[in-house]
Amino acid sequence: MADGGASGWLKHFPLLDDLRRASSGELAQDGIAGTITAILLIPQALAYALLAGLPPEVGLYASVLPVIVYALLGSSRVLAVGPVAVAAVMVSAALIPYAGDDPARYLSGALILSALSGAILLAMAALKLGWLTSFISHPVLSGFTTGAALFIVGTQLSSLSGIPVPRDAGSEGIVAALYAGRDQLDSETLAFGLGALLLLFAARAPLMNLLTRIGVKRETAGIVGRTAPLLLVIAATVLSAVFDAHGRWGVAVVGQIPHGLPGLSLHFLAEDGWLQLLAPAALIAVIGYVESISVAKALAFRRQEKVDPDRELLALGSTNIVAAIAGAMPVAGGFARSMVNYDAGARTQLAAVITALWVAMAAFLFTGLLAPLPKAVLAAIIVVAVWQLVDFKSLAHSWRYDRGDGAAQAATIVGVLVDGVEGGLMIGAGLSLLLFLYRTSRPHIAVVGQVGETEHFRNVLRHEVRTWPGLLLVRIDETLYFANAPRVESELQSHIVEARKPKDVVLVMSGVAYIDTSGLDVLEALETVLRQHSSRLHLAEVKGPVMDRLAGTDLLAALGPARVHLSAHDAVVAIRSAL
Amino acid sequence: MADGGASGWLKHFPLLDDLRRASSGELAQDGIAGTITAILLIPQALAYALLAGLPPEVGLYASVLPVIVYALLGSSRVLAVGPVAVAAVMVSAALIPYAGDDPARYLSGALILSALSGAILLAMAALKLGWLTSFISHPVLSGFTTGAALFIVGTQLSSLSGIPVPRDAGSEGIVAALYAGRDQLDSETLAFGLGALLLLFAARAPLMNLLTRIGVKRETAGIVGRTAPLLLVIAATVLSAVFDAHGRWGVAVVGQIPHGLPGLSLHFLAEDGWLQLLAPAALIAVIGYVESISVAKALAFRRQEKVDPDRELLALGSTNIVAAIAGAMPVAGGFARSMVNYDAGARTQLAAVITALWVAMAAFLFTGLLAPLPKAVLAAIIVVAVWQLVDFKSLAHSWRYDRGDGAAQAATIVGVLVDGVEGGLMIGAGLSLLLFLYRTSRPHIAVVGQVGETEHFRNVLRHEVRTWPGLLLVRIDETLYFANAPRVESELQSHIVEARKPKDVVLVMSGVAYIDTSGLDVLEALETVLRQHSSRLHLAEVKGPVMDRLAGTDLLAALGPARVHLSAHDAVVAIRSAL
Repeated sequence: MADGGASGWLKHFPLLDDLRRASSGELAQDGIAGTITAILLIPQALAYALLAGLPPEVGLYASVLPVIVYALLGSSRVLAVGPVAVAAVMVSAALIPYAGDDPARYLSGALILSALSGAILLAMAALKLGWLTSFISHPVLSGFTTGAALFIVGTQLSSLSGIPVPRDAGSEGIVAALYAGRDQLDSETLAFGLGALLLLFAARAPLMNLLTRIGVKRETAGIVGRTAPLLLVIAATVLSAVFDAHGRWGVAVVGQIPHGLPGLSLHFLAEDGWLQLLAPAALIAVIGYVESISVAKALAFRRQEKVDPDRELLALGSTNIVAAIAGAMPVAGGFARSMVNYDAGARTQLAAVITALWVAMAAFLFTGLLAPLPKAVLAAIIVVAVWQLVDFKSLAHSWRYDRGDGAAQAATIVGVLVDGVEGGLMIGAGLSLLLFLYRTSRPHIAVVGQVGETEHFRNVLRHEVRTWPGLLLVRIDETLYFANAPRVESELQSHIVEARKPKDVVLVMSGVAYIDTSGLDVLEALETVLRQHSSRLHLAEVKGPVMDRLAGTDLLAALGPARVHLSAHDAVVAIRSAL
Repeated sequence: MADGGASGWLKHFPLLDDLRRASSGELAQDGIAGTITAILLIPQALAYALLAGLPPEVGLYASVLPVIVYALLGSSRVLAVGPVAVAAVMVSAALIPYAGDDPARYLSGALILSALSGAILLAMAALKLGWLTSFISHPVLSGFTTGAALFIVGTQLSSLSGIPVPRDAGSEGIVAALYAGRDQLDSETLAFGLGALLLLFAARAPLMNLLTRIGVKRETAGIVGRTAPLLLVIAATVLSAVFDAHGRWGVAVVGQIPHGLPGLSLHFLAEDGWLQLLAPAALIAVIGYVESISVAKALAFRRQEKVDPDRELLALGSTNIVAAIAGAMPVAGGFARSMVNYDAGARTQLAAVITALWVAMAAFLFTGLLAPLPKAVLAAIIVVAVWQLVDFKSLAHSWRYDRGDGAAQAATIVGVLVDGVEGGLMIGAGLSLLLFLYRTSRPHIAVVGQVGETEHFRNVLRHEVRTWPGLLLVRIDETLYFANAPRVESELQSHIVEARKPKDVVLVMSGVAYIDTSGLDVLEALETVLRQHSSRLHLAEVKGPVMDRLAGTDLLAALGPARVHLSAHDAVVAIRSAL
């Protein structure tokens, strides 16, 4: 493990510890990775700010100080933090009803969202509530991302075509407005938009294939492809300036961007409406965290390192609070961006620091030049970036494996498109929770017997097994808790009634991870009635933690040590030798 | 089993089938049991109607036709159905805001509650939603009953003392009103109330002890004790009439009770407000069903019979719809009453039919005589009946075994007293659900090794076991689903990183009852990364239903049959023989 030699306070800051021990070759590698990530990040930062309904510079602010804070506090070596598309669209969904047409209130609302989502993550770290985020299942997260990406593509159609669409339009509203305004299609805007789209898509697989075919190395080809958005921004800006696209054709452009970075400010604290933004901030926090931690874990395990989920709550929480103070929108770890960072050879968060320095430099040196950049080009960058998030293969995979998960995923996609990001997420999470509860309330219970001459016991209905008259072995395949206690009770009673007064009933508890009070009541009632009918209840393969808890109960007192067996095999041997 | 010889349509009606095959001695035994239950039921029926805020005869109506319908449809032989205290107080909680001071609307509201709760039970039967009722855990149900019983005792203090208390007062309101009205204490009312209370309590344990000491058989003594409420009603009515307690002292009395039984009527269908009563009706249905099914199951298993939970939904649903048509309040199976019925020797639902006939006869012959009966006496009957439901021992038991369950139970008691029956139930059910989700999201994962020379594998931290270098066996002790997938992934990654590049990783799946899509993703990602590091993933002890589902997944294709083992022992033998 990379932090095996860390000592004292340094071990709390992986970056500093890594730097202390890194060779200059490794540092150079981080420098290259950070630069490549910056090339990808700068145009995305501008675009995602627009997607959130904010001025483009807010995306740049989100890519400097917050990135450095995460580099210092995070436990992931390669997670690339910054503005992300899904969070951006959630910001816009939250702020349009909050701020209406007041740009100042809209901006301060974005800072409140950053601060609140940071505070929520810190509170979750302090209260050890990180487990709550795991209630967003993979299918629901995937459905959410796909639905949000499709919706984002829809929101960009206005910028790409020049047809006006109300900011607060949902999916239907967008379609209706595009259709109603089809006469207002602006051909110059469309030219910039479609051109940018074509170039960006061409810079992916087609360019890669071309370059590798003429002998360029796959890694180099990949890096060349990633410069496409930045090159496109430069080329489009120059073109737009040369032809005066804004003045002559009325093409919407980015306009003046303030120079440099803003001073730190707590101004947003004085705003009202925190309560109104609490729910969307919680969703932004949870989605951002879940996305970040899954990328971070996957990349860490490839390098045989660990990521600490609680530590990540702390790091991402602090990062978002700093984002608010730095005048930035909420940030999270981006999936594609982190992959680029990792593939480019990043080994420590030094790469992220380099990225942040490049963005800062861009903010100081180049923002003044970007005024003529057509918004349609940024819209094209958004569409191409989020298009990678649309994943119907995953839906097919879920549906094939598990109808319930597939249905939840489909419902989430539809929910996001029809009801918006918050509604869609709630529908998906609610459905998967109900599904889980339904399943655990109907546990699998099997009568088992001995497999051949082994010490292994399996279901009598599925395997050729040996059983004995007067001896009933039943395996319970689920944690015994209130929601399945009534059913487990009914099924055990059925098996016992069907076995016609067995002398010994052995419950094989290999599948029972926990017995709550309702489950204990069922077992105690069973023991009492069996005793009244001169039968004996036995337990076998009770797991350590379950046994610890049973110690001191009436059930264990009634059974005594002689009727609690280490394995099903031990139980059979003991019972049959006592005959 | 008693219905072993049933054939054709008769087997759908256990009562008819039982009657066909019963001897005359058995029928006589049912007649005696039914009579004893009627003696207990008649005063309770009057009292529980008053508890629900209804005229006393409504309790009698609930004890005739509904009882006969359940006898015909129910699958339990001994469940005694009728008005119950907890449902009565839920009826009053629902109707006071619904009807205000309009007695006609109050009564029709009660019939709507009966019809709605019946319809809800039938809908649950049709939609196979009976499992939803199991989300009320034993501790929450016990806490709910205790809280409701304490609250009911509070509501009766006004009738016992003559001090007026507003009908819609909560726990605090009752205490405040009793204190504020302490000067209005009515000594004659109190005399009837306290006298009745003393007699009823004396007729329990003290009388039993006395009678058995002078040589009366325990069963006979029990029956004598159970006649106490009926004898008390007769004596109090005679006393009150002789002294003209109502006219002379203003003691509140029952007043004129209509003679006989009302004709069937669908009049209540025309009322509005069904929607407003839907939520309380659902709670009454669920609580009534849960109480009934648990008594029915416990008593059936004692007789080695089965109760069919779905059939009971149907039977209780129909019973409540008939209750509405018969002008009665909602009914359910009473715990104490069913125990009395069973102890008195009831063998079939013929006993219930006999009970219903006695109640009908009482309604025709004696209701005219009951006008002078002081309400304080009925209040005393309620207090003594519900006092048996107050169960703090169960709270101590839950708390000792499981702090979480104990906390949920205590919260339910407090919730019912502070926030009312609906709020208390929601608090308790919500807490126990959260607790369960929290637990399953943090599953137990153990590295295991071979126990001695057996084929049994246990936790290396708890047992003396044998392990092998380069071979890691990990047991997952929980269904693998979205809420624990992130944590299982982290822990498996940790164990693998700590084992320092094991050649073979065996997941022992004895505790895994289900793998959802998120869990499958974790296993597939694990397999991929292990393969990239030249390690092999194996599965062992995969349960049949899990294996069925895994067939056709990429995971199983990658593993092939050679890396899926029947038992952990088989896995070790196969891996070590391949070395």
